[in-house]
Amino acid sequence: MAPILVVGSVAYDSVKTPFGEVKEALGGSAVYSSVAASFFTQVNLVACVGQDFDRQDVRLLETRNVDLEGLEYISGKTFRWKGEYGDDLNEAQTLETQLNVFSDFRPKIPEKYKDAEYVFLGNIDPTLQRDVLKQVEKPALVACDTMNYWINGHFKSLLNTLKFVNILLINDSEAHQLAEEANLVKAARKIISWGPKILVVKRGEYGVLMFHVDVQSGVLVAFGVPAYPLEEVLDPTGAGDSFAGGFMGYLAALGRHDAQTIRQAVIFGSVMASFNVEKFSLNRL
Amino acid sequence: MAPILVVGSVAYDSVKTPFGEVKEALGGSAVYSSVAASFFTQVNLVACVGQDFDRQDVRLLETRNVDLEGLEYISGKTFRWKGEYGDDLNEAQTLETQLNVFSDFRPKIPEKYKDAEYVFLGNIDPTLQRDVLKQVEKPALVACDTMNYWINGHFKSLLNTLKFVNILLINDSEAHQLAEEANLVKAARKIISWGPKILVVKRGEYGVLMFHVDVQSGVLVAFGVPAYPLEEVLDPTGAGDSFAGGFMGYLAALGRHDAQTIRQAVIFGSVMASFNVEKFSLNRL
Repeated sequence: MAPILVVGSVAYDSVKTPFGEVKEALGGSAVYSSVAASFFTQVNLVACVGQDFDRQDVRLLETRNVDLEGLEYISGKTFRWKGEYGDDLNEAQTLETQLNVFSDFRPKIPEKYKDAEYVFLGNIDPTLQRDVLKQVEKPALVACDTMNYWINGHFKSLLNTLKFVNILLINDSEAHQLAEEANLVKAARKIISWGPKILVVKRGEYGVLMFHVDVQSGVLVAFGVPAYPLEEVLDPTGAGDSFAGGFMGYLAALGRHDAQTIRQAVIFGSVMASFNVEKFSLNRL
Repeated sequence: MAPILVVGSVAYDSVKTPFGEVKEALGGSAVYSSVAASFFTQVNLVACVGQDFDRQDVRLLETRNVDLEGLEYISGKTFRWKGEYGDDLNEAQTLETQLNVFSDFRPKIPEKYKDAEYVFLGNIDPTLQRDVLKQVEKPALVACDTMNYWINGHFKSLLNTLKFVNILLINDSEAHQLAEEANLVKAARKIISWGPKILVVKRGEYGVLMFHVDVQSGVLVAFGVPAYPLEEVLDPTGAGDSFAGGFMGYLAALGRHDAQTIRQAVIFGSVMASFNVEKFSLNRL
C-alpha cells in the first residue's frame, strides 16, 4: 500500500443548484480528491490556503488521515469559486473566481513526499503541474486533470505537461476541445499520441469512458462504465475530483496499475463520485 | 425460437447530417426494427406503403426473411420524413413529415400472425398500438416505443396503451417528458407504475439504462450498458428501432424473457444500434 500525493486547489465554494445552495463551503480539487482517496490510502496534500482558512476544515482533513505538511499558509484569503447549475446538472456556470492566495502559489513538495509513487495533479496551471513533477524523484504513475481555461489559454504549456503524464482525466467537452475533434474516439487517439497512455473521459450522469492503446495489438481499446443512477443529486461540484481521488487512491492502495486493476479503479472512482453528488460540498463524503 | 410481430412505419427518409445526406432512402420504425430483428429470428411485419414503394425495397426485406403478408398497399404515396442532425448527433430536427398513406392506416393482423408471442409496437399512434394488441390472441411479451408527439398530444391514449405493455423503450428526453420529472430514477418509478414492468431508456452515444422493479424485494433495479464508442457515425436515424429489433429479436429467438436474458438482450440491441449508425439508411445493417 503506497500513499498518494495530491496537488491542487483548496477553495471556499458558493454553489447554487435547483435543489439548494451553499455559501463558502469547503471545496477545491485537492480537497475533493484527497478526501475521496483517503478511503483507500494515506494522502499527502500539497496546496495553499489563506489565513482565513477555518480550523474545522483543517480538522476535517486530519480526521480523514490527510497529511497536511504540504498545506502552505499564505498571507491573504483562500481561493474562492462561485458557480451555478441549471436543470442540466452536467455543466456548471462559473459566476466568479477569486484566485486570492492561489495567484502566488508555487507548490513546494516537502522532503518526505519526494519519493511519491502515485501522484494526482489536480486542475491547476499546467506550469505548476510540471513544477510538482520536477520535485518528485521517480513517480510510478502520474494522473492529471485540467479544464477549458488551460486548454484555451495555455495550450502549449498543457501539451508540455502531458508528455510527463500517464493518465489524463478530463470531461467529455474538454476532450473534444483539447483535440479539436467532434468524434470522441478520434479525440482519444490524438490525445494519447501526446503522452498520456490512458485517457479517462468523465461524462457526468452518463458515466466514464476510458481509452488506452493495447500494448500487444496497438489497437485503441475502450472501457465504459455507466454511472450509478441516483434518485437525489443535489450538487455535482467535485464529482470529477472525487472520481480521480477514488481512482488513484485505489491504485495506490493496491500498489499496482496493470490494465485489470485500472478498470477496477474506474469503478471505485465512479462510486466515490456518486456519493459526492448526493449532498452539497463534502457533506456526503 | 418464436417469430416476432413488428408493427410500425415504413418510410422514405431524407436525412442530412454533418457527414453527408440521403434523399428518400428506405427507413421507418418497422423497417429498422424488422431488419435488426431478422438477424435473430423470423419477422412478421405489419405496416403500410403507397403504390410508389420500390420493388427493390420489397426484395431487401424478403432477403432478410421478413414475412410481408401484413404489408398493406394503400392508394397514395409512402410515408415520408425529412430530418437533419447538427454536430450533436443525439437529437434530430424534423424538417418535414408527410403522413401520406399512413394517415388512413388501420393495422390488420393477418390470421397466421394472431398467435404472436413476441410483439414490438413501433412508434405509431397509441390508439393503433392498442388496435394491434386487440387482434393478437395472447402475447407473451409486448414492447412498445413512442415519441414526444404522442406524449404531448395524445397523453391519455398513450397511458391507456401502456397498461397493456410489458416493456417501454423510449429515449432520455422522452422519459423525462412522459413522467414530467427531471430525475430519471424518479421518472422510471412513475412510468413503471403505469403498466410497463420494464423501462428501457435509450441515451444515444451514452448507451442504455434499463429499469425494473425486483419482484422479491420491490426495489427499483437499474442496469446500464455504455454504447460501443464508434469512430465513424454517419447517421443516427433508426438507432432506437435497430436497438428494439435486436432486443426483441434476441428474446424471441431464445423464447424466454427472464431477467438475465433481458439483460443480454440489451447488449444485443446495443450492438445492432451501433452497426446501424455507421452508415446512412440501412446500408450498414
